[in-house]
Amino acid sequence: MPSTLIALLHGPDRPGLVARVSGWIFEHGGNIIHADQHHDHEAGVFFQRVEWVPKGDTHAADAADFRTFAAGLGMQVQVSQSAHRTRVVLFISKADHCFHDLVLRWKAGEFAGEIVAVVGNHADLGALARGYGLPFHHIPISAETKAASEAKQLALLRKLDAELVILARYMQVLSADFLTQFGRPVINIHHSFLPAFAGGRPYHQAHARGVKLIGATAHYATRDLDEGPIINQDVARVTHRHGVEDLIRKGRDLEKTVLAQAVRWHLEGRVLIYGHKTVVFD
Amino acid sequence: MPSTLIALLHGPDRPGLVARVSGWIFEHGGNIIHADQHHDHEAGVFFQRVEWVPKGDTHAADAADFRTFAAGLGMQVQVSQSAHRTRVVLFISKADHCFHDLVLRWKAGEFAGEIVAVVGNHADLGALARGYGLPFHHIPISAETKAASEAKQLALLRKLDAELVILARYMQVLSADFLTQFGRPVINIHHSFLPAFAGGRPYHQAHARGVKLIGATAHYATRDLDEGPIINQDVARVTHRHGVEDLIRKGRDLEKTVLAQAVRWHLEGRVLIYGHKTVVFD
Amino acid sequence: MPSTLIALLHGPDRPGLVARVSGWIFEHGGNIIHADQHHDHEAGVFFQRVEWVPKGDTHAADAADFRTFAAGLGMQVQVSQSAHRTRVVLFISKADHCFHDLVLRWKAGEFAGEIVAVVGNHADLGALARGYGLPFHHIPISAETKAASEAKQLALLRKLDAELVILARYMQVLSADFLTQFGRPVINIHHSFLPAFAGGRPYHQAHARGVKLIGATAHYATRDLDEGPIINQDVARVTHRHGVEDLIRKGRDLEKTVLAQAVRWHLEGRVLIYGHKTVVFD
Amino acid sequence: MPSTLIALLHGPDRPGLVARVSGWIFEHGGNIIHADQHHDHEAGVFFQRVEWVPKGDTHAADAADFRTFAAGLGMQVQVSQSAHRTRVVLFISKADHCFHDLVLRWKAGEFAGEIVAVVGNHADLGALARGYGLPFHHIPISAETKAASEAKQLALLRKLDAELVILARYMQVLSADFLTQFGRPVINIHHSFLPAFAGGRPYHQAHARGVKLIGATAHYATRDLDEGPIINQDVARVTHRHGVEDLIRKGRDLEKTVLAQAVRWHLEGRVLIYGHKTVVFD
Repeated sequence: MPSTLIALLHGPDRPGLVARVSGWIFEHGGNIIHADQHHDHEAGVFFQRVEWVPKGDTHAADAADFRTFAAGLGMQVQVSQSAHRTRVVLFISKADHCFHDLVLRWKAGEFAGEIVAVVGNHADLGALARGYGLPFHHIPISAETKAASEAKQLALLRKLDAELVILARYMQVLSADFLTQFGRPVINIHHSFLPAFAGGRPYHQAHARGVKLIGATAHYATRDLDEGPIINQDVARVTHRHGVEDLIRKGRDLEKTVLAQAVRWHLEGRVLIYGHKTVVFD
Repeated sequence: MPSTLIALLHGPDRPGLVARVSGWIFEHGGNIIHADQHHDHEAGVFFQRVEWVPKGDTHAADAADFRTFAAGLGMQVQVSQSAHRTRVVLFISKADHCFHDLVLRWKAGEFAGEIVAVVGNHADLGALARGYGLPFHHIPISAETKAASEAKQLALLRKLDAELVILARYMQVLSADFLTQFGRPVINIHHSFLPAFAGGRPYHQAHARGVKLIGATAHYATRDLDEGPIINQDVARVTHRHGVEDLIRKGRDLEKTVLAQAVRWHLEGRVLIYGHKTVVFD
Repeated sequence: MPSTLIALLHGPDRPGLVARVSGWIFEHGGNIIHADQHHDHEAGVFFQRVEWVPKGDTHAADAADFRTFAAGLGMQVQVSQSAHRTRVVLFISKADHCFHDLVLRWKAGEFAGEIVAVVGNHADLGALARGYGLPFHHIPISAETKAASEAKQLALLRKLDAELVILARYMQVLSADFLTQFGRPVINIHHSFLPAFAGGRPYHQAHARGVKLIGATAHYATRDLDEGPIINQDVARVTHRHGVEDLIRKGRDLEKTVLAQAVRWHLEGRVLIYGHKTVVFD
Repeated sequence: MPSTLIALLHGPDRPGLVARVSGWIFEHGGNIIHADQHHDHEAGVFFQRVEWVPKGDTHAADAADFRTFAAGLGMQVQVSQSAHRTRVVLFISKADHCFHDLVLRWKAGEFAGEIVAVVGNHADLGALARGYGLPFHHIPISAETKAASEAKQLALLRKLDAELVILARYMQVLSADFLTQFGRPVINIHHSFLPAFAGGRPYHQAHARGVKLIGATAHYATRDLDEGPIINQDVARVTHRHGVEDLIRKGRDLEKTVLAQAVRWHLEGRVLIYGHKTVVFD
């Protein structure tokens, strides 16, 4: 596959936007290989993902020119290059299922990015990370050390030029300050239930309540206390025959697949964030 | 199929319960055709559904004897006869999707019961109900008339000897008093979302929030304000390509299938209520 | 919603197609409200569905002009108007589940078309069809009368100007001659199993084989003996607890939802047929 | 959890079987903790899985006695002890997704058994196997060496006292002779499509055919050329937006989860083989 440019646009809808965008690419000698747009008629907003092969070796210049062009249309735009391998850092704790799953998918070539480091607030998975050839950074965190630990994490992320953080069952809440200072996307995974539960030991609560479905949700972490824009969700059916251990095991499987799909979409430039929601060009 | 007895039992677990129950049936000349039991080891509770063909025409006597026997084991028990056709009353409002679906499934022979009447707080679906050959009772209800209207409903249910009420998108909350006085099961269906929403126009809220899954939950109505024991749940996947109208249409389909399955299980004596949850012997 | 034009295009891929198409619409004063395209890079084929509001009341003229324009691009094209209500004829036999489901969805406003008549090779469902206010035509068919009966069907379809035939569990194979002479789309629904079975009583065979999934497939009927282009498929999980009757019931539910979704997509101009396959712009 | 006995029974159905079995256990001081039975009324066959805690340390004696007892009822029976860790050997080739998935689930404690060795017809995954602390045996196989290679495999399996072989994308057909001589269960995983395809490169064929669902099936390998008794199946939805690579990736995910679930059920004594089918007591 030749190297492409991928643009994610959104802004006020008006006639001619598709023609203007595709016309610009055609006039610059580019060849569109995927384009998907969405018109939110209620909100009057236009969304587009367009991927094209530029003429010759003009990726950087075309990306800059396209940004100017799109801004002139009143659009917010992000342009990335398919040849660019997004630098990913995993934040983990003690649970290893999402960790193994993400690393193995990365090694199998499923992700358009590179895992460059692993950060753990516990040291338990350090040997496994190093076994995969990944640098492991143990940064313990407690109520008292939170600010200092987050400062260490931020310094590391800057040094690594991390472009995406994945909370792979990290089990710690990132402060609003951390998210602001990092200023780049953070993807989180958590369990979801119908109906929802507050408090700890959610699978025990779900079992006690006799729920028939358990779920998982992958979303961007945001400064607000509520969960951020949802990228992906899925559920599995359970019955009274499943004990708490079965629910936890099924939950692990959901967390793995839901998170991996969200990460894959993000790395392929398929997720456009708009207010509190996402548009996923899958 | 010969006529059977169906018992739903639960109580403190202890060794020998399965042997005692199956032994009793064998000694009384019965032939077990289905038996399913569940031991909740955490709570120390035994649950069983057992269905058998009694020897000869002894159904009523055997049912009574079995109740005494099970009580002697410390079990709560319900015994029903498969030949008995549970008398069902539908409560509806203006939406017709669950109404049509339930009536057509009943006519197709999918339900072990008889729909004996339809009650509407609006008259809109009266002609359709009568077109299906079903008596339709228009009992309007408003904040002022609620007590009087519920009294009318209760009188009707008693006159009809109704054994199950299905709220097929009835859109009114039954009072705790109504539920107590009726004293028999009431099954309700409502939409469910991940995350949950409060307030009106839930599909509009879900669309605005960008949810990726919409769901429906069938449950028994209870006196408590929160929803009662869950019988069945299901979800459907949605994307930004689906408008609010699509979400509502998909919601209708979920409501139909989730409610119909819950009703089928209830009528076949497969749902055992235990505290706030159900054990479904599907 | 204003009335729109919907074009389905496909042909040899080359740079600038999206720009040309959207440019043409813009220049003619149209406003694109949905556009979705797909590039099959292996086959070198471009597929597009584009829907737009023309300027003023120029639908018919713009449709004709667009056809000429698209042909000039080397594209095969179909253009329809959203205001046009496709004329649909249902072919049924004795099974009524898909029949009721389609008619009720039509009455609920789910379909962009009109059911104008019902044809049955048995008279069983005639009264129900008339109860829905639909003309019912009883055209019996047997091995001996097949040619004559199909001639009657064709005459009726021509008289009604039928644009789509839905085989809603019609249980008869249409001859290649019939399909050629009708010359318009015919959608069929049938059960599907993993692994596949030949011969009669498929649900009995599936039960005997212990399959864990049963399925349904909606496809266009074609002259070839094998099944035509697939529009939609779905499956349901079954266990040993499900008897043959349960499999048949679950199969009915699958057939209803899979067929209804296929019909909805077809009527909204979302299904592009390409060789033996479809591209569904859902 | 105390150590239990697990019996899988089947044979001609007749009244009193449940009472006889549970009575036997009760009389021997055992405590049933799970019991599930199924009556195939058409075939007249009784199936049961019963799990109980024997009185004291009498597992081996009780297992032997129960076998005699069940044979006396005309039942075929298998009795295993939950404390026994089934000895599992993985057969692999070059694909690593099922291999990693099974080993990591085993290490996470999801399987009631022990992986004791890995056999590969290629050496590619040897280092990874050893990295997990597993003995790896490279036994190349070709058309000419097939008999000799299978003899080596059989010798190894005997030496290891292997009780289950899992073909984790092994890509070689085991000879009928191998299966007879091994005489113990072999579980295989393969892709499944609706409709089915013959020949190579199945995902390419599925893509060319425009299938909307891809699937995977886990089954016992049998001497017959057709596939053996099905243990588990699942499907995933695909659209024209998914290229062949996406189908292959989704197929890998299906293969992993379908195979792991089948293995988990087998190791927990939940799968009863009966003729060409299975009864899974999940």
